Amino acid sequence: MTSVDGRRRRGDATRRTAARSAAMTATVGGLESVTVGGLAASTGLSKSGILTVFGSREAILLAAVAEARQIYIDTVIAPGWGAQPGRDRLRALVDSWFSCLRRRVFPGGCFITATSSEYGHREGPVADAIRKLKREWLDLIESELAVAGSLDPPGDAFRIDAFLSAANTRFQLFDDETALERGRHLALEVIDRHS
Amino acid sequence: MTSVDGRRRRGDATRRTAARSAAMTATVGGLESVTVGGLAASTGLSKSGILTVFGSREAILLAAVAEARQIYIDTVIAPGWGAQPGRDRLRALVDSWFSCLRRRVFPGGCFITATSSEYGHREGPVADAIRKLKREWLDLIESELAVAGSLDPPGDAFRIDAFLSAANTRFQLFDDETALERGRHLALEVIDRHS
Repeated sequence: MTSVDGRRRRGDATRRTAARSAAMTATVGGLESVTVGGLAASTGLSKSGILTVFGSREAILLAAVAEARQIYIDTVIAPGWGAQPGRDRLRALVDSWFSCLRRRVFPGGCFITATSSEYGHREGPVADAIRKLKREWLDLIESELAVAGSLDPPGDAFRIDAFLSAANTRFQLFDDETALERGRHLALEVIDRHS
Repeated sequence: MTSVDGRRRRGDATRRTAARSAAMTATVGGLESVTVGGLAASTGLSKSGILTVFGSREAILLAAVAEARQIYIDTVIAPGWGAQPGRDRLRALVDSWFSCLRRRVFPGGCFITATSSEYGHREGPVADAIRKLKREWLDLIESELAVAGSLDPPGDAFRIDAFLSAANTRFQLFDDETALERGRHLALEVIDRHS
């Protein structure tokens, strides 16, 4: 019993460590750059240990998307969730999103932006997981906008998402902090229009 | 003489064909997915012919960025350039940009968006060429906005660029034509604010 539990715990730890490393790598070199050898080198895990836990490279990429989702929940959603639904919560979400970018929680910036651009036109389970993650984020913004009294939640969510993504792209390209301030200001302007 | 000219013409044709194919490939699988073997397969050119003309893989990627720039000039800038500077020209540029996206001039959507996301945080000549191309596009929008009477050309250019990029991303991810209409409408709204 103890031995089985021990193996399971080690398997879970391996899975989490490798998935997190894969998510980080994906923001810098794309999901395509994630390899078992690279993960072994960056985590100190053995290649055979990683392969035993995941079984396939696709399973690693799916775990990376799931881990990125968990990172968004921990660093963007959770800190904002205490605020009142609607305007206050949206402001808090935008603030924690930019804080996450500024602190380089993902070394190459927003995971969703990076992987959406890479996998946008592809088919298969990994592309579907990325689509689902992006849709989930947009749905969250839209539903909070509806609570905030937006007359056009999908349109306003498009604006907010566009400003966040553009700020991320410029920050990555030009290392330009003013883009972060500009993107944040524009997103908050959309939110405050309904207060 | 004739033989030298003939060789040069063949070299130029090879260069152009390979660079165009590389630019197209980059929008689907990223610049990282561009290989000499892949280019040979997609163009019918020989691998040795491609390598003779370019000399290195980096030279191929730089030629792909230059070719993408030329495609933007031919399909987005040139059609809009006949319009009056300022508001009319900006409207024409936005329209031809969306037309280019809808006609899938690049099979994976906007070349600048795709490669900015892939190379945003990298160093080196290829990343610099992508930065320069993005900067050139933003400068063009900003200078036309100034002519159109914008009180904040960099801020308005940020908005327009954000709406175009977001429309592209959603179109690639969700094959959603309404995103194109929404992005176009929002971009024109920024332009028309100053008329």
